[in-house]
Amino acid sequence: MSHHLLSVDSLNRDRVDHLLRIAARMEPIAGRQKVTRVLEGAVLGNLFFEASTRTRVSFNAAFCRLGGSVCDTTGFTFSSMAKGESLYDTSRVMSGYCDAIVMRHPEQGSVAEFAAATHIPVINGGDGPGEHPSQALLDLYTIDKEFARLGKTLKGAHILLTGDLLHGRTVHSLIKLLSLYDPMRITLVSPPGLEMPAALVDLVTSRGHRVEVRDSLASDFSDLDVVYTTRIQKERFTAEMSETFAGVSDDFTIHKRFIDQRCSPSTIVMHPLPRDSRTGANDLNVDLNGDPRLAIFRQTDNGIPMRMAIFATLLQVDDLIEEDLRPVRWFVPAQTGTLDR
Amino acid sequence: MSHHLLSVDSLNRDRVDHLLRIAARMEPIAGRQKVTRVLEGAVLGNLFFEASTRTRVSFNAAFCRLGGSVCDTTGFTFSSMAKGESLYDTSRVMSGYCDAIVMRHPEQGSVAEFAAATHIPVINGGDGPGEHPSQALLDLYTIDKEFARLGKTLKGAHILLTGDLLHGRTVHSLIKLLSLYDPMRITLVSPPGLEMPAALVDLVTSRGHRVEVRDSLASDFSDLDVVYTTRIQKERFTAEMSETFAGVSDDFTIHKRFIDQRCSPSTIVMHPLPRDSRTGANDLNVDLNGDPRLAIFRQTDNGIPMRMAIFATLLQVDDLIEEDLRPVRWFVPAQTGTLDR
Amino acid sequence: MSHHLLSVDSLNRDRVDHLLRIAARMEPIAGRQKVTRVLEGAVLGNLFFEASTRTRVSFNAAFCRLGGSVCDTTGFTFSSMAKGESLYDTSRVMSGYCDAIVMRHPEQGSVAEFAAATHIPVINGGDGPGEHPSQALLDLYTIDKEFARLGKTLKGAHILLTGDLLHGRTVHSLIKLLSLYDPMRITLVSPPGLEMPAALVDLVTSRGHRVEVRDSLASDFSDLDVVYTTRIQKERFTAEMSETFAGVSDDFTIHKRFIDQRCSPSTIVMHPLPRDSRTGANDLNVDLNGDPRLAIFRQTDNGIPMRMAIFATLLQVDDLIEEDLRPVRWFVPAQTGTLDR
Repeated sequence: MSHHLLSVDSLNRDRVDHLLRIAARMEPIAGRQKVTRVLEGAVLGNLFFEASTRTRVSFNAAFCRLGGSVCDTTGFTFSSMAKGESLYDTSRVMSGYCDAIVMRHPEQGSVAEFAAATHIPVINGGDGPGEHPSQALLDLYTIDKEFARLGKTLKGAHILLTGDLLHGRTVHSLIKLLSLYDPMRITLVSPPGLEMPAALVDLVTSRGHRVEVRDSLASDFSDLDVVYTTRIQKERFTAEMSETFAGVSDDFTIHKRFIDQRCSPSTIVMHPLPRDSRTGANDLNVDLNGDPRLAIFRQTDNGIPMRMAIFATLLQVDDLIEEDLRPVRWFVPAQTGTLDR
Repeated sequence: MSHHLLSVDSLNRDRVDHLLRIAARMEPIAGRQKVTRVLEGAVLGNLFFEASTRTRVSFNAAFCRLGGSVCDTTGFTFSSMAKGESLYDTSRVMSGYCDAIVMRHPEQGSVAEFAAATHIPVINGGDGPGEHPSQALLDLYTIDKEFARLGKTLKGAHILLTGDLLHGRTVHSLIKLLSLYDPMRITLVSPPGLEMPAALVDLVTSRGHRVEVRDSLASDFSDLDVVYTTRIQKERFTAEMSETFAGVSDDFTIHKRFIDQRCSPSTIVMHPLPRDSRTGANDLNVDLNGDPRLAIFRQTDNGIPMRMAIFATLLQVDDLIEEDLRPVRWFVPAQTGTLDR
Repeated sequence: MSHHLLSVDSLNRDRVDHLLRIAARMEPIAGRQKVTRVLEGAVLGNLFFEASTRTRVSFNAAFCRLGGSVCDTTGFTFSSMAKGESLYDTSRVMSGYCDAIVMRHPEQGSVAEFAAATHIPVINGGDGPGEHPSQALLDLYTIDKEFARLGKTLKGAHILLTGDLLHGRTVHSLIKLLSLYDPMRITLVSPPGLEMPAALVDLVTSRGHRVEVRDSLASDFSDLDVVYTTRIQKERFTAEMSETFAGVSDDFTIHKRFIDQRCSPSTIVMHPLPRDSRTGANDLNVDLNGDPRLAIFRQTDNGIPMRMAIFATLLQVDDLIEEDLRPVRWFVPAQTGTLDR
């Protein structure tokens, strides 16, 4: 494995399998039965040039749970860069302070540029419209874990990706990861103009998967295993698209009625979050809260073991974790993992 | 004890006594003679949607001194919520990352709403005009500790609350906690229009305490044990109040002359801080700096053992601390705790 | 040693030598061969009232590598001070939360004012045009380390300081530290109007060093050991200076041609960073990237062992480090310290 994680494109089936396996090994720690201190003394530079509290805290907490310390930077207030410092200089300087870097930046390619200047592991925490590989990995880990619970396998599964499939960085990365596995059926549903890029459809098809493209959810999905929905960001629409899309937005919202009537009792619902819960928003509906098929919070929970796995693998402590475990001494609510989790 | 700390209203005498007792047990750690690592591996989400550096650092330091790690978020830049994420979603997500949450938010009730969606312990760090229970607890702990030093007891004590008793969240919570104890005498002095709400006065009276309400400090307070003063926030005044209040503001300022001439050598002076030290401010006067009766910095110091006690109790490690103590190895200034402390 | 570090003026030769020695002892930790936990349980208040990500992260990482925990505050959002809280109050409050303070503040003298109110160690992380002693110490440490590698000594060395020598806080502090050592030759080159203050030149001369002042780099520097260059901040120019300076700016830029043609294969190039890498900037040129004589990233790397040395000395654990060392367990890239480092 390269000692960076910049894109899912650098991952083959073996590497992904390794990360899934190590993530599973992190479950007793993520689930707070065990504690490890294997990264004691290590420092993570958690550099967020763009706000993303959820992702920042997730990486931060994952590194802490391995025993390390975290230096956060947030916002556009990174003073040196405002004074004309290059990414090269910033990278070289941070490499002397830290043992690993997570970087989020609004400009595509900037994380790779930063990584090219350093020997310490760099993880892409999202570079604008570019990549966000840890999200795709935790999504795949979630599907794998849910399927294990339900006695299903990826082979032959039916997965629906819906919403804005044109701009959705997460669905692009996820479909690439899924394509590494045994043949499955993938249905893509989006409003006209927001379709999955053809190159991605071709890639997945060429790897033996069956891909169907539709422009409506008005079908039977009774054999569906996963609905993965993403927000339709109206603010990105062209005038033409806004016209086409007027009045149809609700047709792409996933709500309880759709799951109850069109899907099955074992269909799980995923979303990369955050979702817009305000009245009138066309996002994943809150009427599914409390339904055990809603997997969105189990999905974000899985960010911890997967990000621990990424750190442990890049810092090569993945084989040391098990011998370092100690019992947790504080209170862990018995209900953790219940409710609609 | 509920596994949240949202309001002093949820605390009875036993629970408060327990927290005071555990806080006292934390003194060797807060005073840097001892170190514990009982929360090693635990992660605190320290979510400040409203700036309050003092409170944020105090909670952060208290958690660190128990051996845990802290993820801070500050300001209104919590990007997900700006995009329409509900408190429910934020709570569910953060619960997967952290073992406890401290939350400060400008809107009353928001912390309780957040807490309702999670099983991990949530501590209210202040929700606008609502509650700030850890402040009231450290205030009570300060009175208790100062009285022990001076050979006094809460029973029969004379406590003066002054300043803005209408808006002062801290005095409302403190008077509720005091009312749980043996009968004492409480004098309330505020400018007209800024009196303590009648419901609170009735509550305290009904529990057997003697409450006197006045509109001036021009009295004899030679038997006074505690002056607790709060800032009068002129920016909250109505036009009518501004008129009434014009020219009398200094009459409610606590300064050295008042303590010297009206009170006694053992009267202690408290304030929730921050105070406005600029010339012309009508806050607690700086001429008391250096006077041993000024307890305001001992009071903020007490935030550490009390917040450690809150964490230790909610995370149920309060009985493990003593067996886990190790000696501090670094330099602790001999003068800590002296000067006007 | 005073238990603060506010200015290089408080340091004599013995104290500086001690810090250089302790910094060297930190190398196995800074170089990630070893881990220490000697400050486990200690809390650093890292108070940055002015943005300086590089310095903030460097202090943060140094404290973490000693085993301590860090509470960061950044920006002008320190809410209490906005409400009129004095530095005295802020200092007293923070002293109850933390075991040491690093403070950066835009106003000269503010860090000293803060330090006067507390018994815990305070380190000046830069107070506007005032002092930034840890930068000068890491600069001196870099020269010392580079010289040891090259078989050189400070005695008799030839050091060039160039750029804005009037406003450059770092060159003022560095020249004071250098002046404590055996006689050397110091050449000062700056545009007219940006000369080193005469009082500093007199001080250095009075201590037996040979100082030459020039207004151009057009000379032979074949015996030069160090070029220390600083950015010329045009935004600070008066109208008259702008006129004088027009067209000559490039004459003070250090680039590969200057080093190749005028200096020697063992001349090292230093800069306090950040540098402006944008096209047209008159800062240290990027064409030296990759040249082993460019010491700027080794220089920032040295911030970690030097800041660890400062913390260890002020907190009096400098003699405990060696007995507390444990091996690092994670991956350390073999290339660290190579490339142009």
